[in-house]
Amino acid sequence: MKVGIVMGSDSDFPVVEKSLSVLKKFGVDFEVRVLSAHRTPEEALSFAKNAEKNGFDVIIGAAGKAAHLPGVLAAKTVLPVIGLPIKSSTLDGMDSLFSIVQMPSGIPVATVAINGAENAALLAIQMISLREPSLREALHEYRKEMREKVIEKDSKIQEKIKNL
Amino acid sequence: MKVGIVMGSDSDFPVVEKSLSVLKKFGVDFEVRVLSAHRTPEEALSFAKNAEKNGFDVIIGAAGKAAHLPGVLAAKTVLPVIGLPIKSSTLDGMDSLFSIVQMPSGIPVATVAINGAENAALLAIQMISLREPSLREALHEYRKEMREKVIEKDSKIQEKIKNL
Amino acid sequence: MKVGIVMGSDSDFPVVEKSLSVLKKFGVDFEVRVLSAHRTPEEALSFAKNAEKNGFDVIIGAAGKAAHLPGVLAAKTVLPVIGLPIKSSTLDGMDSLFSIVQMPSGIPVATVAINGAENAALLAIQMISLREPSLREALHEYRKEMREKVIEKDSKIQEKIKNL
Amino acid sequence: MKVGIVMGSDSDFPVVEKSLSVLKKFGVDFEVRVLSAHRTPEEALSFAKNAEKNGFDVIIGAAGKAAHLPGVLAAKTVLPVIGLPIKSSTLDGMDSLFSIVQMPSGIPVATVAINGAENAALLAIQMISLREPSLREALHEYRKEMREKVIEKDSKIQEKIKNL
Amino acid sequence: MKVGIVMGSDSDFPVVEKSLSVLKKFGVDFEVRVLSAHRTPEEALSFAKNAEKNGFDVIIGAAGKAAHLPGVLAAKTVLPVIGLPIKSSTLDGMDSLFSIVQMPSGIPVATVAINGAENAALLAIQMISLREPSLREALHEYRKEMREKVIEKDSKIQEKIKNL
Amino acid sequence: MKVGIVMGSDSDFPVVEKSLSVLKKFGVDFEVRVLSAHRTPEEALSFAKNAEKNGFDVIIGAAGKAAHLPGVLAAKTVLPVIGLPIKSSTLDGMDSLFSIVQMPSGIPVATVAINGAENAALLAIQMISLREPSLREALHEYRKEMREKVIEKDSKIQEKIKNL
Amino acid sequence: MKVGIVMGSDSDFPVVEKSLSVLKKFGVDFEVRVLSAHRTPEEALSFAKNAEKNGFDVIIGAAGKAAHLPGVLAAKTVLPVIGLPIKSSTLDGMDSLFSIVQMPSGIPVATVAINGAENAALLAIQMISLREPSLREALHEYRKEMREKVIEKDSKIQEKIKNL
Amino acid sequence: MKVGIVMGSDSDFPVVEKSLSVLKKFGVDFEVRVLSAHRTPEEALSFAKNAEKNGFDVIIGAAGKAAHLPGVLAAKTVLPVIGLPIKSSTLDGMDSLFSIVQMPSGIPVATVAINGAENAALLAIQMISLREPSLREALHEYRKEMREKVIEKDSKIQEKIKNL
Repeated sequence: MKVGIVMGSDSDFPVVEKSLSVLKKFGVDFEVRVLSAHRTPEEALSFAKNAEKNGFDVIIGAAGKAAHLPGVLAAKTVLPVIGLPIKSSTLDGMDSLFSIVQMPSGIPVATVAINGAENAALLAIQMISLREPSLREALHEYRKEMREKVIEKDSKIQEKIKNL
Repeated sequence: MKVGIVMGSDSDFPVVEKSLSVLKKFGVDFEVRVLSAHRTPEEALSFAKNAEKNGFDVIIGAAGKAAHLPGVLAAKTVLPVIGLPIKSSTLDGMDSLFSIVQMPSGIPVATVAINGAENAALLAIQMISLREPSLREALHEYRKEMREKVIEKDSKIQEKIKNL
Repeated sequence: MKVGIVMGSDSDFPVVEKSLSVLKKFGVDFEVRVLSAHRTPEEALSFAKNAEKNGFDVIIGAAGKAAHLPGVLAAKTVLPVIGLPIKSSTLDGMDSLFSIVQMPSGIPVATVAINGAENAALLAIQMISLREPSLREALHEYRKEMREKVIEKDSKIQEKIKNL
Repeated sequence: MKVGIVMGSDSDFPVVEKSLSVLKKFGVDFEVRVLSAHRTPEEALSFAKNAEKNGFDVIIGAAGKAAHLPGVLAAKTVLPVIGLPIKSSTLDGMDSLFSIVQMPSGIPVATVAINGAENAALLAIQMISLREPSLREALHEYRKEMREKVIEKDSKIQEKIKNL
Repeated sequence: MKVGIVMGSDSDFPVVEKSLSVLKKFGVDFEVRVLSAHRTPEEALSFAKNAEKNGFDVIIGAAGKAAHLPGVLAAKTVLPVIGLPIKSSTLDGMDSLFSIVQMPSGIPVATVAINGAENAALLAIQMISLREPSLREALHEYRKEMREKVIEKDSKIQEKIKNL
Repeated sequence: MKVGIVMGSDSDFPVVEKSLSVLKKFGVDFEVRVLSAHRTPEEALSFAKNAEKNGFDVIIGAAGKAAHLPGVLAAKTVLPVIGLPIKSSTLDGMDSLFSIVQMPSGIPVATVAINGAENAALLAIQMISLREPSLREALHEYRKEMREKVIEKDSKIQEKIKNL
Repeated sequence: MKVGIVMGSDSDFPVVEKSLSVLKKFGVDFEVRVLSAHRTPEEALSFAKNAEKNGFDVIIGAAGKAAHLPGVLAAKTVLPVIGLPIKSSTLDGMDSLFSIVQMPSGIPVATVAINGAENAALLAIQMISLREPSLREALHEYRKEMREKVIEKDSKIQEKIKNL
Repeated sequence: MKVGIVMGSDSDFPVVEKSLSVLKKFGVDFEVRVLSAHRTPEEALSFAKNAEKNGFDVIIGAAGKAAHLPGVLAAKTVLPVIGLPIKSSTLDGMDSLFSIVQMPSGIPVATVAINGAENAALLAIQMISLREPSLREALHEYRKEMREKVIEKDSKIQEKIKNL
């Protein structure tokens, strides 16, 4: 089980990095690539075209502004492609979001929140868990931990309030 | 293999219907439910909570306006949840899109385009195809047909232009 | 008389804190909880479901991004629920606002301004004052003070202008 | 128990009308006024100023475009004021929503969805129910009916699907 | 000839200050007030109502968020009212702009750019110049100076480019 | 006293027409021109440049989409220029509004609501009334009539409600 | 001299058609293709890659929603690519515009207005006229005609006004 | 071959500067001007009117807020005009973008991304390359370099990942 993480520019790495931590935590292999839909289209398309035979299960495409990358990858593979809109210096991420999510009929991109790198990874894991029961267990475990953290924060805030 | 399609209101059916055609074409079973995150929260949550053991692989949640349904379902299952934003009578679908896609870390919703019902279904199929090689074949076939239709339209338009 | 203040994440506290000062000033009891619509849905729903019998009069739900919390709480109680949209790092609070205010028919959320924590508290007090005449007096007093502060600022600015 | 429903223009009546049906259903008295923040400011302000002593519990202010009415009413009463943004012919209701919800600290307006007239009425009833136990019962009943309607629609859609 | 400058909050002063410099430069008298449409509505309305007889020619209303002040002033005077939308901490000034400019038929507010304080003053001067020929001369002079400054900057940039 | 009404395209006439009725009602002379900032720039600029000596007091510029006309006219005259944004077939008038209102320092355009043709005329009249006391009287009268119409509508709606 | 007009879907033809009339009027050859960035990426890329050697001078790419087509074509050719955003059924064309115009550094797309098909053609002609003096003459002529039409409309409206 | 770069204000220079580097790299001559559509309209118009006979091939117009400059230049020349929207302190560049791109039929402006100065220059070069084969070669070379840089970054990121 392997996830391909493709970003349109290496400047997206500080966001994308959070996807890697999640994948590592779940023991899911990944490859990280800088492939641009516009500056290295052949490489991007070839990556997508060969993703299936190269053993990838899911592709995450991260891009900002006119964020064509996830859609362009999705056009060349039937593997699920997850779109991760990156907030850029103008338009507050709205351009990236619209460019990624508003795909035409036939070629879906599974879009997550602007800069939602953790969720991109979790979604990939949820998809692969359709085949890998161990991942499903791990996801249940992850949810439990997440729940416990919130409960802990809930306790702490109540402590804090008392002492106000 | 089975997809659960949940809509927040039966008025969403004219859009959701297009998902059903796609699932039928691929021979993927589905159940369709009207479950509201706000008016029947117990039913919605119970559906999501039991979805795994009831044999669902993926859930599609369709909703408009403050479209909480997909996120609420996603909170109660580790199955992948696809969010289908429905355009409503105000704000041109932007409210539905933001409410569905901007999920917090930990609980992703795989969002497709506003009213993008075909793509919601195709994305579900792509996910399930991680486990079912026959679906993957069918997806490749579907892409081929889609491609051929566009090529045909390309020919037709050139015919049409000549006769202008 | 008691107000339940629920936030989706403890990172919302710096905003929510301003609600607490207002409630304290008016001598209205409150409980503060970190309950997530997505990470601890059972706790959130159970809080809302039991709010009435636990003596709460009003609930304030504060959340950012796909801010489902206030709507999810409102689905499980007939107490008035006030929605406080929190500005997050993308989309400038528009996502939170739309997710909270655009509730479907049947389950209202009384929405205040983005980051409008003082007003969330004041609105809660206005609601409770329907039953508690003392609060109504206090509200009239508060308005008077507020008015006086503005009048004082008006005087000061005129002083300042003279000396320009 | 009495609700004041004020609209900025009689052209808002087709939307506001839905509030009246809800109030009637719950047996809550109401008065309906056409009072403009801009064209009849004295009447609007006088209505708000005297609302408390005239026996009103809650005011609903409905307005479109630069929708100042709810805020202007709220400035002259400590009764809770509910803002109902009306979609007008331009900007798809976004102007009305922003003008109503983004109130400054000190004077809240409890804003509901664009054209959300039913919810404006329900919210008023929820507020009054803080004092009137009978309304609270009625609200629980209303929720039950609403829930049953959704369940019925859920059954119907499943019937419909079977026969597809 | 006298301009009334009213701001909804003294926090608007750093923006409004730029209006004062312009008015001073043109020798136009002004009064500056902090009057809130919501916190001191009587004072605001009374200011507007008496503006005509108090010798004001034009009123500038500066406000942020749900910026009702200019419209509320305009409702009580037939003097021209200029609306100056102030950018606040959320929504990037769009809320202020929509709240000010989208006035209903009958009560116009002459809206300038977000934070456009110089232009608010210039517009006031242009209006008064309909009566005061000396101001018109001054305006022509001002345009000439402005033009010369741009021409100077044009020369400088060409110098700068040569030395690149 | 004379108002110049310039539209960028004759397709704007159905909106602009409402300005004419208002001006007629107040007995203010006007000229109506179709002058395009882009297709007949010389004519547009020459109109603005000569407006002062041709006896105009105020110019109303109506335009849609990239609505440069009001700003371009304002650049060539020190007469007050009122900008009337026209809603076009895309972007719901937001493009026209932003293009007109966001003028740079030095050249203000007094912007009214999208399609707010009546208010453009009323604003022009308010400006001219700085010099013409008779217009000021007429404006007071107009406000009174407007107020009476709202009061009448208020009565009618209360009649209507009684008979519901 | 030849322009390639590529649309993402034949449903864009009613808009694109207006480009053809303009090109015909100027005697510029064109080819019209339906090539989808997502459904027939090979064809689209191959068209762009070979455009230079196939004698094209400029490419116009028309697309709606997540409008990747112009950017994808631009990635495979150094010919100028003009992007024509098509208004689709949701988001009023804003998604198409952002997806086309917000291209990353290195690969520009010359974007025209939403549904601005005439201008896409005129821009192509202006570009080719850098090499073809005859086109430049024709453009001057076209401007003259356009100007005359506006002047005629200007006369007509003044006639019309007189007879009001 | 020569490009005219016109900015509405010298404060736009830090963005525009990036255009100059690109033009220099390609050996394309340029002139840089500060010409304001509103403050020095005669100079701006005269620049555009004489651009053709002064040997310019393309004009780049950079402007923020109500960014009329590119459209105003385009109105006076048949040379291709490239519009470069500058992000200003409010509305995040959306006002500049809409003001530049939404040009009416007849007068196109070739719009690039907000602050997309490199692309403005590259687009100018692509246009001139229709006549200058040497530039076309240089563009192919530039693409190759750009592609190599991305490939290098791709390698580096994979190195980096290995060492995580």
